[in-house]
This record gives sequence, structure tokens and C-alpha cells, in this order.
Amino acid sequence: MIGGGKDAFIGAVHRLALNMDGQIELVAGALSINPEIATESGRMLFLQEDRIYTDYKVMLEKEAAMPADKRLDFVSIVTPNFVHFDPAMMALEKGFNVVIEKPITFSMEEAKKLKAKVEETGLTLLLCHTYTGYPMVKQARQLLQSGVLGKIRKVFVEYPQGWLSTFLEKTGQAQASWRTDPKRSGAAGSMGDIGTHAFNIAEYVTALQVTSICASLNIVVEGRMLDDDGAAFLRFNNGATGVLMATQVAAGEENNIKIRVYGEKGGIEWKQEDANTLLVKWLDKPAEIYRAGTGYLNSFASHNCRTPAGHPEGYLEAFANLYRNFALTLQAKISGETPKAEWLDFPSVNEGLRGMAFIENVVKSGQSEQKWMDFTV
Amino acid sequence: MIGGGKDAFIGAVHRLALNMDGQIELVAGALSINPEIATESGRMLFLQEDRIYTDYKVMLEKEAAMPADKRLDFVSIVTPNFVHFDPAMMALEKGFNVVIEKPITFSMEEAKKLKAKVEETGLTLLLCHTYTGYPMVKQARQLLQSGVLGKIRKVFVEYPQGWLSTFLEKTGQAQASWRTDPKRSGAAGSMGDIGTHAFNIAEYVTALQVTSICASLNIVVEGRMLDDDGAAFLRFNNGATGVLMATQVAAGEENNIKIRVYGEKGGIEWKQEDANTLLVKWLDKPAEIYRAGTGYLNSFASHNCRTPAGHPEGYLEAFANLYRNFALTLQAKISGETPKAEWLDFPSVNEGLRGMAFIENVVKSGQSEQKWMDFTV
Amino acid sequence: MIGGGKDAFIGAVHRLALNMDGQIELVAGALSINPEIATESGRMLFLQEDRIYTDYKVMLEKEAAMPADKRLDFVSIVTPNFVHFDPAMMALEKGFNVVIEKPITFSMEEAKKLKAKVEETGLTLLLCHTYTGYPMVKQARQLLQSGVLGKIRKVFVEYPQGWLSTFLEKTGQAQASWRTDPKRSGAAGSMGDIGTHAFNIAEYVTALQVTSICASLNIVVEGRMLDDDGAAFLRFNNGATGVLMATQVAAGEENNIKIRVYGEKGGIEWKQEDANTLLVKWLDKPAEIYRAGTGYLNSFASHNCRTPAGHPEGYLEAFANLYRNFALTLQAKISGETPKAEWLDFPSVNEGLRGMAFIENVVKSGQSEQKWMDFTV
Amino acid sequence: MIGGGKDAFIGAVHRLALNMDGQIELVAGALSINPEIATESGRMLFLQEDRIYTDYKVMLEKEAAMPADKRLDFVSIVTPNFVHFDPAMMALEKGFNVVIEKPITFSMEEAKKLKAKVEETGLTLLLCHTYTGYPMVKQARQLLQSGVLGKIRKVFVEYPQGWLSTFLEKTGQAQASWRTDPKRSGAAGSMGDIGTHAFNIAEYVTALQVTSICASLNIVVEGRMLDDDGAAFLRFNNGATGVLMATQVAAGEENNIKIRVYGEKGGIEWKQEDANTLLVKWLDKPAEIYRAGTGYLNSFASHNCRTPAGHPEGYLEAFANLYRNFALTLQAKISGETPKAEWLDFPSVNEGLRGMAFIENVVKSGQSEQKWMDFTV
Repeated sequence: MIGGGKDAFIGAVHRLALNMDGQIELVAGALSINPEIATESGRMLFLQEDRIYTDYKVMLEKEAAMPADKRLDFVSIVTPNFVHFDPAMMALEKGFNVVIEKPITFSMEEAKKLKAKVEETGLTLLLCHTYTGYPMVKQARQLLQSGVLGKIRKVFVEYPQGWLSTFLEKTGQAQASWRTDPKRSGAAGSMGDIGTHAFNIAEYVTALQVTSICASLNIVVEGRMLDDDGAAFLRFNNGATGVLMATQVAAGEENNIKIRVYGEKGGIEWKQEDANTLLVKWLDKPAEIYRAGTGYLNSFASHNCRTPAGHPEGYLEAFANLYRNFALTLQAKISGETPKAEWLDFPSVNEGLRGMAFIENVVKSGQSEQKWMDFTV
Repeated sequence: MIGGGKDAFIGAVHRLALNMDGQIELVAGALSINPEIATESGRMLFLQEDRIYTDYKVMLEKEAAMPADKRLDFVSIVTPNFVHFDPAMMALEKGFNVVIEKPITFSMEEAKKLKAKVEETGLTLLLCHTYTGYPMVKQARQLLQSGVLGKIRKVFVEYPQGWLSTFLEKTGQAQASWRTDPKRSGAAGSMGDIGTHAFNIAEYVTALQVTSICASLNIVVEGRMLDDDGAAFLRFNNGATGVLMATQVAAGEENNIKIRVYGEKGGIEWKQEDANTLLVKWLDKPAEIYRAGTGYLNSFASHNCRTPAGHPEGYLEAFANLYRNFALTLQAKISGETPKAEWLDFPSVNEGLRGMAFIENVVKSGQSEQKWMDFTV
Repeated sequence: MIGGGKDAFIGAVHRLALNMDGQIELVAGALSINPEIATESGRMLFLQEDRIYTDYKVMLEKEAAMPADKRLDFVSIVTPNFVHFDPAMMALEKGFNVVIEKPITFSMEEAKKLKAKVEETGLTLLLCHTYTGYPMVKQARQLLQSGVLGKIRKVFVEYPQGWLSTFLEKTGQAQASWRTDPKRSGAAGSMGDIGTHAFNIAEYVTALQVTSICASLNIVVEGRMLDDDGAAFLRFNNGATGVLMATQVAAGEENNIKIRVYGEKGGIEWKQEDANTLLVKWLDKPAEIYRAGTGYLNSFASHNCRTPAGHPEGYLEAFANLYRNFALTLQAKISGETPKAEWLDFPSVNEGLRGMAFIENVVKSGQSEQKWMDFTV
Repeated sequence: MIGGGKDAFIGAVHRLALNMDGQIELVAGALSINPEIATESGRMLFLQEDRIYTDYKVMLEKEAAMPADKRLDFVSIVTPNFVHFDPAMMALEKGFNVVIEKPITFSMEEAKKLKAKVEETGLTLLLCHTYTGYPMVKQARQLLQSGVLGKIRKVFVEYPQGWLSTFLEKTGQAQASWRTDPKRSGAAGSMGDIGTHAFNIAEYVTALQVTSICASLNIVVEGRMLDDDGAAFLRFNNGATGVLMATQVAAGEENNIKIRVYGEKGGIEWKQEDANTLLVKWLDKPAEIYRAGTGYLNSFASHNCRTPAGHPEGYLEAFANLYRNFALTLQAKISGETPKAEWLDFPSVNEGLRGMAFIENVVKSGQSEQKWMDFTV
């Protein structure tokens, strides 16, 4: 693991997720750029002393030199956005598979290079768009693809948060500080942090691609350097349209990412707040409540459930699904087997590049006087 | 009553609403342009034979000539949009107060004339934006105006319907036929029919006014003549921004108009599906569930409740609140008293003009390549 | 109307309900035992002076002497429980149809006499168990009777309130005073006031009858004279069992009466808080959300809807359904037609007698050391 | 781990839970009485060959003989109910701390012996009543204990399931077979399997003890050998009363265990279906929505949260909370520190004995003609 020391947020979440299924063991780490924190964090995680590193380059060098049965199978990069690209490239060059937090890189250019490198090496990369790891999100995608709801016409996706309602970065709060800093976070604030999730789930659930965009971004809290709020109209490659909203100044909101998609005959609705439920609405018959853990789910959804219906699974299980599918794919590759479609169903470099394209396009559109712009990659 | 024969929809709703509180009695009607339907409908409603009319002009003439204690106190106009202006003007000229369905007229120009006439005559006009008749919508408005949630920053308002998901007007269905016909409905379809409601509730709840707009309108169902779907970014006169969505092709949706408003310290959420509840969210303490019929409501909300908490009131009661407040205002005026602020809290010509401005601005913006346009009245 | 003066609660609710559909007009009243209140209330309701009475006996005498086209069609009795029987008997004897608040009488013996009198006279009686007037409750009953959910096995019904959590009657509050007073309310407190509603909805929805009972009643608030809380195990005539709960000391609860019924293949769930929704659950497929106002409802449910789906109807509409069905039945009888099954679907003397039996049996069981007792009528 | 082979259910859940926080490693197992399954399961879980056992007695002997730094810290017993007592006693005698599935033993007599043994050895035992591991359940307990809701008056607890609606054990389904078999499950079916959870959460949340009981148990599915449905009236040691319901034949229900508790001034409501929410209702002000992961929770709740508000945690996290608190307590004991109150807040032998008492008392009451019986331990 690169990054994720005891003072970090998302690294701890990664560890909860990768531990869960007992298929993955954390054995080495360069957990902080601060050597003391790196060392102390490694000890807290029961790493062997000789695999606690204070520099990720050293780690990748040394681990690459180890015998195959001892060496890392993959590297998780959980650093702030501006430190994604370099370690990812180096890890791939050293032959390691890679797990990386979203957004995949700091710029679209970097994303293109990383994509080329993954394709060149044939290695596997997991990009952590956690929300597409929820079983009922997978159920929605399969249901829409089956055609029973007709051609997709309309997409509403939103991610409302409230935690940046005050000028939190001024207080020195760590998460707020780097996420609102253009040098560490990138060209977008709210759109990069949560807008990319909304964009990703919209393209994932519909299996469509955005082709043009009209965005309006705002800095609501005075003094902030990046957008903390915004919305976009979307057009998709099948003619459908959509509205995307992402805000971090909706005071009182938590993380209730929500998607609604309507076809000619009905629609689906999913929201994280009630993650184990998928509402399926119909033009002329009663709406249906699909539930995680039941016997009637499709294979993509049921493969990603661990507990019987009614015992709720949550964010960590969705996250663990990413890791488990990544691990199952790696194991299959290692043993020369063909990974199942259900295992391969995790976000990777394509989603990473689309996400970076979203950031660049949404920012460009937000600054433009022109209404619609082509979505370019 | 003008319009609202036995083959109509909203006229029947008006009668349910005006009957409820026992303060208003329907005594005369020109209920249809079809004389047979007009007559038959009048008999079904127990009108006296001599007050069943087949022409609204005749009705207004004759009723105006009656003695004050027998004559109509007011006229309800429940015809399709293109027959709002003429009877309303004539009624005012004859000295009748007026109730009118939304949108107030066919064009903004007509709306301006009607507004001038109301102001000239000093008569009272009620415009039926029903949703602002709900007690918890009033609670929201008062709460936001009290300042406890801080300055308003963000408004999300939506009105999703699904009933026009098919080419229903082709089947001759009466409601679909006139509402999708530019000659009878006006410049906008979905935006005129339900977008105006969303716009109205947004301005009502926030006590703000939209100053610029960026809209995207769609005709989703092939062959349709007016927009059946659309969205708009909004800017308000205090600097707040918003997103408005209105669609009639969200297959499976009913009439779940919903509004969320966020201030610096918290936000409110109300939706028609759970009309007796107002969620109040806070940045750093538990959200609160305000409920209709309770003892802790403000005077505007409690004045508009009829039953104890937990006995749900619905759409007809919200509609009846419009009529009741209109009637209370009329009675006060007649008896020379000053109507209470709670009674005067119903939509009238100003809201009518704003609504027509919304229609004209949203259509103009929808046709433009330019992103933002001033909202002009 | 007998009772229901300006100082009363349920009378006003009756008037809202009977006004709504424009089929019924209030023309005469003995609205209070206090002559001044009776007179003043009559004037507030625009009654003609000569039909404002201060004694119900005088009213029934005089009205009975009027010609058929002017005379009352029926009498509504909305007095406290101990003044139900006498006016109801006299009204029937004078040839009037009767509407009466629940519980039908003060004792089971009175209920039997009243039932006999109704059968003897052939007149029509409506007993106001409002909750069975909700369209989705009717949908539930029809669905269960259709057999698609299999044989009924289990019934859970509850009515939690909180308004008697304090010793409210001590403050002189009118509702609390008579409802907790054995001389005016009857043998039971909470069980008579709301337990009878729970019992009635259980028998109505299942179309079954309770055959034995095991009850536990409590007086929670010190000093109170009647039960303010209780529960009962139930056995039904098809072998199903159930649990009934009714309490008036669940602080913070409003009026969320709720029923769940399970058959071999699935179950239904309805609650007043979300009155326009009926959940239908299945053993091995997704649950379904039936909604009021939709096109797929059965004839009993759809007959009792007034507004399109998504425009919520509430308690007053459920109440108005009782009055409307009663009025439709009367009109049919008067014109010599056979009332439709949908019109006849309102509670009457049989439900009244069952309700009084519930009160007597639940009190007797509550006082007994023995677990199960036969439910006797 | 004893039991929990690849053909078992709850063992896999234990592993998901104990893995999560990276504090516990599974190192040895006697995973099945079938040697082949035991061996194969051990290999699937990456156990060292010499710590895969086919007999738990051998395992406990051998592990006890290992040096302290290699030996098991504790043993998890996840076998069917009739194989709880013997391995637990032996483990304690060999000096191992113990984790055990509920119900703690097969009989109350065994539970008493086990409790004595734990007290004698000073070892630590965790009993897996998972639902009390949810942070919002802990929030409820602390809130009630703080006194802000007044003296507790009323408890409603229910656990509805539907999975035994058919005669599933006849098909040989493993879970149904042993859970409905008196020889393997014990004196009660539904009451032992889920009624104990309902009982446990009621006593936990209220911090009260049941003192008398009146139960009614049913065998609904023909041919079944143990109760699959039942309910009980409860009296608590402070004078409060309650109703408990547990059923496995509510077709269409999943695992929505729910508890409501009312004090003089308000009440709480929690249900597993919406596990991250605690509703707090008040007599005369708006209800509040407490949410997991927020900053305003008490120390017992917040200690048991892993993710920020709005990222739902579920059943596995609740389960992991039991293991984590148990592990924190063990670590503290090992290092000679005093465990914090928050760590010690997990179910143990006292809860185990109360649960066995519940089973014996509820069965006895269910068979009795007498209404109330003392709850004896």
C-alpha cells in the first residue's frame, strides 16, 4: 500500500475492504511521506519490519526483486490525486498489478498514458469507484441492458453532500485542505471528488456514454479555490438526456448518491441511503422492490452479496466487492483460467480515462458562455 | 363555474375542494361549450335550471344583473389555457372576483393585462398553484424566512411524471390532446403544465425570485408538438443557484413534486408523496421531522391543517386551502375587515405573471445556443 | 346532525367528509345539549333558523312530520358514546336512516337491540370505522379474498397513539375527559377508542372473524380510570392467529394504524402514515407497491379514489368514502335500484355489534387469570 | 474455529466479521465433523496444514500445548446449538477465551454451568447477539439510560421472517433441518432462533429485565416439530410492559428485527432494515433522526462506527463490532490495562443465561393455560 498512514482517511477504508473476504493480506507499505508516520503506521498494521518502507520507490524496487511467491501481488495507491500517476506508472513498469483511488490521475493526459501502459503490460488495474460495487447497482445495469424497460430516455443522477458548507479548509482539516486545493486535487473540486462518482455510476448503469455536456459550476463558500457545487445537462450516445448534480454545500446532507433511469416502459431508482433496495417502476403496473440477498437476482448482483436478504450490506461490502473481483480476476489470470464476466465487472482504466475526461469537460463547459459542448476524450 | 363539465378533469377537483369546508356553494355554471353537456352537467350538480348556462358571457351578464345577495360572489375558470383570459377579463369587468387555473393565461402579454385589470378593479384573484396550499410547504417557507437555516444557497426542485411516456394524444385522450397542443396549451408543454408548478413552489418557499436561467427542453416522444421533458439551471436574486427538472416521460412516476432548499446551516426537504412531513436537516445535529397537525407548527402551517397529526391530509385539502383562504379574504373584504396574513397567503396575479414569464423565458432559453439568459418579465 | 357543536371534534370532521362530494347537504341540527352552543353552531353552519334545534328529540319529531321532499334523509349522531343508543333508536323509529360514530353503543346489549331495530325497519345504518374507507385497505381485502396470497395464517394489527401520555383529563381537556371516563366512554378506554378500529380493520381486511382472545390491558398513567394501553392475542375462525396492539401512551406517536396479514405465499402491509400505498410481499419474488389512483386497482379500490395517482388522498377522503357509499346506497334504495357491491361496502350494524363484543371480551379477558377465552357475541 | 466448514452458514459470516478490522487472524480450525470437509475447508482458508484439525478435542489439546505466542488467543464455536456446551467448557478448561454463537447452550442448566466456569477461570466469552453490535442500537440504549425520555413504559419488539413458510426441512435444506429439529436446536424453534435476539435487544436497549411473561406459540406449517411463530406479553422489573413477536412464517419478510421503546416524554425506534438510523420521537416537538457516523453520537455509538455518515454500515460491521470489542478487551487484559466501558459492551454469559431462560420460560408459558408466569432463571 502506498499512502494510507494512520493520519489518512481512505487508506483505512481500503484495508477494511481488502481484509473482509480473507483473500488478500497486506504485507508491505510505504504508508506516508512522513517517515515516522510511515513506520509507526506499519507497526500498527503488524507489517514485518523489513517491509515497512518510507519511500514508495524503494518499496517497488525491493519488492520487485523478491521471489514470485513472496513478492506483492499488487499495489494499492491511496494517496491524494496528485500522487497517483507516478507510483502507478512505476508499479506497472515493475510488473505489479495496481489498485488506485479515483480520480485515476491528476490530468487527462496522465490518464491516457496510464491506460496505454496497462494495455502494453497486460497487467490489471482496479479503479475504486465504490458505488458500482453495490449489488443492486449491478442489478439495475443488467435489468436495463436486458431491454425490459425499453430504450433508455432519461437519466437523473445526484450526489449531495454538506460537509464543505463552511470554510473548513481554513481550519486546517486534512481532508478539506487537499480536496479544495487545485495543486493537490486537480482542475475540479466537487466535480472531481464526487461528480466523477455520479458520472461513473450513470455510464455504468446505463451502459451508455456521454457525448455532450452543458455545465454550471459554482464556488459557494467565499474564499474557496475550487468548485464546491455544480450541475450538468448530459446527452448520451443513444439520444437519451440527463441531469447530473453534485454539491458539497447542501448543509445537512451526507452521502446519498442516487440514480434514476427511465426507459420507454419503466424506470429504476437506487440510492446509497437504502443501498440494498432497487426500485423498479412500471408504466402500468405496480412498482417492484428488488432486494439484495434474495434468490431472484441476476448473477452479477447475487455474486456480490454475502448475507441473506434483510441483513444489510453497506459501503464497505461494496468496496470489498471491488477488491474481491479484482482478486478473483488476478487469481484466474495467475492460474491461466478465464475470469468470469461477473469477476471482470470492476472499474479500470477505461472508466479512469472517462472520469478524467468528465473533469476536464465539465470544467471547460462550466467556464464557457456556450450552452452545449461536445464531450471530448 | 366556467368549464368543468362532466367530461373534464380539473373542474371536478375544484368542486371537491370548494365544497369541503362548507363555506362555498356552487350556484351557477357555464360548464361546457357543448350546450348538452353544459345542461346535463348542471343538473348533475343540482344547479337551479335558470342558473345553468350554455354561454359564459350570458352567465356573467345575467348574474351581474342580479341583486347583491343572490349574485355570484366569484367565478371559477377551469377551462383549457387558451380560454382563460377572455372570461377572466369579462368577469373582472362585471365586478366578479375570480378563481383561475394555472397557467393564468395563454401568453405573458395577456397576463400583464389581467394583472393591470385586477389592480384597477381592486377585485381578488386566486390562481390555483395547489402545491403551495400544503401546510408543510408553508412551514418550510416560514422556517426559511425566519433565518434559522442561514442565507439560502441552493434550490433543487423537480416534478417527474410518466403519463406522457407514450404518444397518448394520438389516441384522442382528452387531457393529453389539449395539453400537448400549442394552440390550446401555449408555448410550452411539460414546462407549462408542471414546470410552472415547480417554478412557483421554488419562488414561494424561498421567497426569492429567479433572475437568470439556462434551460434545455426536449421532445422525447416522436410526433409530439411540445416539450415533454426539460430542465433548467436557475440563479436567484440573492445569489443562490438552483436546478429545476420537469418531465412527463419518466415512465412509472406519478406526481411526486419535490423541493429541497439549503441554507448555510441546514436545509429543508418536502415532497408531495409524503406531504404531511417536512424534513429539516442540520449541519451538525440530527435532522428533524416536522409533521402536519402538530402543536409546534407556525401559524401559517397550522391555519391550513384540518385534522390531528397522523390523520393524513392530501391534495384535495391543499386545494381546499386555496379556496378557503380566498373565501376568508373575500368575507373579510365584504365585511370591511382586514384579512389576516395567513388568509392572504394564496397565489394571485403576481404569481400568474411570474409563471407566464417562466414559460416564455424557459422556452426562449431552450431554443438558444447561449448558456445563461436574463429572466425577463 | 346530533352533537357536533362548535366545541366538539368529530362533528367537524363529519361535516368536512359529507360536504366533499356535493351529494349531501347539512340542513338541520341539534348540535349541542347546551342551547346557546347549539344555536350559535347552527348559525355558523348556515342552517335555517327553524331547523336549528336545541333538543334532538324535538328535531326528530318535527323533521319526521315534514313532507318527504323536505325532511332529513338521514341523521348523523356524533355525540359521546353514552348518547349513541337513544337518539339512534328514536331516529330509526321515526323512519330516518342513521350515521353513527363508533363504538356503535355503550354496551353490547344496546348494540344487539339496535341491530334488531335496523333489521326490523329495513333502514340503512353507517358506522364510522373510517380506516376501512381507504382505497388501499379495500385493495388489500380484495387481494386476500382472491386467494393469490394463499390461506391467511397471521395477522398483526396495531394502533399506537401518544396523546394520553400525560394525565391530560386532569387539565379538563374535553376529548381526554370523556374518553377516559367510564360513565361516558364505556367499559374500555384505549381498547374502545382505538382498539375497536384495529379490531375492525383486521376483520375487514381478512374477511375472518375472531373466535378467541387473550388480552392484557394496562392503566399506565397514574390516576386514570380506564385502560390506556393493551394488547391481545387473537385466534380467527380459519385457524389463523394474530396480535393486536393499541396504546395511547406511546409518547411521540400520532395515529399510525397499521395492519400486516400473511398468507402462505405472501403478505400485505398497509399503514395510515402512507395511506396511498399497499405493500404486497411475496415469498420468492420482488415485493410490489400498489398505489391509489392507478389503473390496475380492483373495482372496490378504484371506486373510492378521487384523484390521479400521486396526488395523495387522506383521512377526510376515507371518511367521505363512507358517506358517499352510504349516500349512493340510499339513493339507489330510494329510486328502487339495487346498490352495487362497491357501494354497500361500508361498516354497519354487524360491525357495530362485533366492535361492542370486542370491547366486552377484551375487558373480560384482561381481567382474567386464564389465558385464552372464547370470543362471545 | 470449531464448525463453520464450507457447507455451513454462520461460520462464513464469523470469518467476514473477524477479518474486517485486521486485528484477528484465523490460524487453526476443526471446521467440520466430516474429516474431508474439515480438511478441504481449512485449505480453502489458507490454514497451515498442521493446524487443520478433524476433531476439536485434538485441536484444543494441541493448541493448549503450544507456546503462548503461537497458541490460539481464543476459540470461536459456530456449530449447531447442541454442540455448543462441550467444546466451550473444554476450551475454557484449557485456558482459551471463547466466542460462541447464540443461543449459548442447549439448555438453561448448561448455561448455568458455563457461566460458573467463565467466572471461575476469569476468561472472556463473547456471545454473538449481533444486533446489539449496531451503533444506533447502542445510541438508543445510552439515550434511554440518560433519562431524557423519562421512565420507560412500553416496549415493542419484533422479528418477522418468512423463510420457513413452506415445509423446507422436508427438502433436506441444511439450515431448516437442524433449526427445526428439537434434538439439535433445543426446546424452541422460532423462539430460540430469533425470539432470543428480540428478547436480548429488548433487555439491552432498555437496561431492564423481564420478570413475567405470557406467551402463545404456534406450529403453523403442518408437520413441523418446533414452534415457527409466537408472541409474548412481557413485564419488566421497573413496571413497564411489552409485546414481543417472532415468526418465521411471515411470507415475504426478510430479517427486519425492530424495536420501539417509549418513555414518559418520547420514544425510540430502530429497525435493521434502516440500521444506520435511530428515530427519536418526542411528545411535543419534532421527531429527530439520529444517523450513524455523525459527530453528535455518544461514545458507545461512535466507537462502533467505521465510515462517515451516509456510507451505510450493515450486518457484517455490527458483527465485526462484537469481535473488535472482544479483541480490544482481550488485548487490554493481556497488557494489564483496564478495558474501556465501550469495549466491554458486548454480550457474554449473563446474556447467554438470560437467553436460555427466555427459551425455557417462553416454552413453558406457551404450554400453560395460565396467563402470566414469573420469568425464572
